[in-house]
Amino acid sequence: MKITANDIAAIALGGAFLATGGGGDTLLGEILAEESTRNAGHINLIPLEQLDDDALVVAIGGVGSPTIMQEKPTNGMETGWALQTLEEFLGRKVSALIAFEAGGMNALVPFCAAAERGLPVVDADGMGRAFPELQMESFSIYGVSATPMAMAADLGDRMIIDNASSSEKAEKLVRNFAVVAGGGQCISAEHVMDGETAKRVSIPGTISLCQKIGILLNEHSNQLPVFIDALSDLLQPTHYGAVSKIYEGKVMDINREVKGGYDFGTLTLNPLSGNGSAMTILIKNEYLLALVDKEPVTTTPDLICILDNETGRPITAETLRYGQRVTVLAIGAPALMRTERALEVVSPRNFGFDYDYVPIEALIAKEK
Amino acid sequence: MKITANDIAAIALGGAFLATGGGGDTLLGEILAEESTRNAGHINLIPLEQLDDDALVVAIGGVGSPTIMQEKPTNGMETGWALQTLEEFLGRKVSALIAFEAGGMNALVPFCAAAERGLPVVDADGMGRAFPELQMESFSIYGVSATPMAMAADLGDRMIIDNASSSEKAEKLVRNFAVVAGGGQCISAEHVMDGETAKRVSIPGTISLCQKIGILLNEHSNQLPVFIDALSDLLQPTHYGAVSKIYEGKVMDINREVKGGYDFGTLTLNPLSGNGSAMTILIKNEYLLALVDKEPVTTTPDLICILDNETGRPITAETLRYGQRVTVLAIGAPALMRTERALEVVSPRNFGFDYDYVPIEALIAKEK
Repeated sequence: MKITANDIAAIALGGAFLATGGGGDTLLGEILAEESTRNAGHINLIPLEQLDDDALVVAIGGVGSPTIMQEKPTNGMETGWALQTLEEFLGRKVSALIAFEAGGMNALVPFCAAAERGLPVVDADGMGRAFPELQMESFSIYGVSATPMAMAADLGDRMIIDNASSSEKAEKLVRNFAVVAGGGQCISAEHVMDGETAKRVSIPGTISLCQKIGILLNEHSNQLPVFIDALSDLLQPTHYGAVSKIYEGKVMDINREVKGGYDFGTLTLNPLSGNGSAMTILIKNEYLLALVDKEPVTTTPDLICILDNETGRPITAETLRYGQRVTVLAIGAPALMRTERALEVVSPRNFGFDYDYVPIEALIAKEK
Repeated sequence: MKITANDIAAIALGGAFLATGGGGDTLLGEILAEESTRNAGHINLIPLEQLDDDALVVAIGGVGSPTIMQEKPTNGMETGWALQTLEEFLGRKVSALIAFEAGGMNALVPFCAAAERGLPVVDADGMGRAFPELQMESFSIYGVSATPMAMAADLGDRMIIDNASSSEKAEKLVRNFAVVAGGGQCISAEHVMDGETAKRVSIPGTISLCQKIGILLNEHSNQLPVFIDALSDLLQPTHYGAVSKIYEGKVMDINREVKGGYDFGTLTLNPLSGNGSAMTILIKNEYLLALVDKEPVTTTPDLICILDNETGRPITAETLRYGQRVTVLAIGAPALMRTERALEVVSPRNFGFDYDYVPIEALIAKEK
């Protein structure tokens, strides 16, 4: 499947949707990826199952605070630097790139690097959404070592983690590099694996899914109910779970702080009219937990997506503003992110929230 | 000059003296270096001026909190891992090792690595004392890049900083690695340079000086005034400055905290008898500033060394205890650490103290 510059905007829009509030605003990534793809002519998007078993696959993306990414844009060189540093360290050439998350900017970063190097991008990712930490990538969850990994920042700082005794340590080291060397952000190339492994540990089809979601959002931007039905039909045959509208309301309160390279926050939504219950959404880069009357309505790893009622566009955490009228959707996480093994890493308790994961399908059934 | 296991104890003792309170207790380093040197038979200590111009010289030492090093000893493998990681990255073999500081443990770390690899150690270092940060090494001060540098921690974590846009950033990255990967400590191999450069940027003769100081301390442990005279004679023809006894008293108060991988503290000394003024010594891993009645008596980079009146041994910051009777010596820093260029990095203000550097010789003259 050939991706041209004309396809990037839809991928960016779908990526913003799957970002569940995180992953940063996609506009800058969109501009960079469009320009890169235009220069390259097109980029091959390889279906996961068609990847050569002995391909050398590397996950690439940005690490840092989405808020800072808005204020201090990339210089466009970091992806190339990170990849080159990794290749020189490995003494081998990378043969395909994969997004470590299909959400936000990070759905697009592989295209920038791929265009520069004439490489294909794999139609898959490591989260099927966005999450704030490296050990939450399905690659790590299913046993691929994050290291050796290489990272680069805008002033030319470059670092290699040769070996980490845990993915959590690698995460802390790259996060610190983003803060120290990049003022809050960097590009990381990691989870070196062969094609055979990538097929086993990746969430399939998520980049083309971004594009399809982007097209649907564009088609139905003024008719959210129609979009929701179409999305439900689109996801039904995939590895994602149920789609459900869980709230419609207005932003009453949003508090945010950047701490240790993350955006933390709490969002409060009130009903559009009347005396219904408020919804609270807890944020660590992404929307992770939706509560009504302190009862969980959606729990991570299931996706919480917030759409602007006026524009029909996804709203990222850093662009939430008082008074916005919004529709909140929940989507069951991809199957690979809901296994017992995955839930040891991406459940509410892993983010410090005192709740268990309850699949959205069970919560919907309970409601009815 | 051949260093055998029998020489290590004196080097360790002299290293503890030049550590100016920092660099950690040398006992563990002494045991490891003795064992390594015994296994190797001997280690060649090369005078700086005899180094081949095209030798590949690497500075090696431990990074972290001396307090933590006492509680969580090295596993003995980290020096080898760091060196091997650096060599593999460079694609070249290292031909000589140099201490990044001649103080404490770090005067001995090169011997451990040298013994394992059959390498010589250069009779020189990058500080002529101990200091808490990488950019304070004369190598960095005189323009040698700290990177590429490799570091290793006790569980096998290994990292390479390929390029850092400043030595301060490299320092923050290795310090974070010590905390995240090593629970507060790691071994770092850095400042790759050729022999010609090493001759220009290193403090000469400091390892053999450690040994000579150690021998003097052993000879005169019960006669500190005799030791002070002998030390003065020993240093007179070197690049170090004046030697002066600046206080004799007892430890009244010592507060310490480990913060961000450093030991911070304030030491208060009272006179042994009578109503004389107290002395305050400010600590960041090392003794950096000695004050009497808020007036500076010794200022960094000049050395402040505290000796136990009973044992005649140097007291490191983490072994200061209420009631100890001590003699405080000041020594003028080596010439290379007192240039305008060096003072931009190692003056009191670089440690957050609101004082200028005043050479100990000027303070002595003022006193008289």
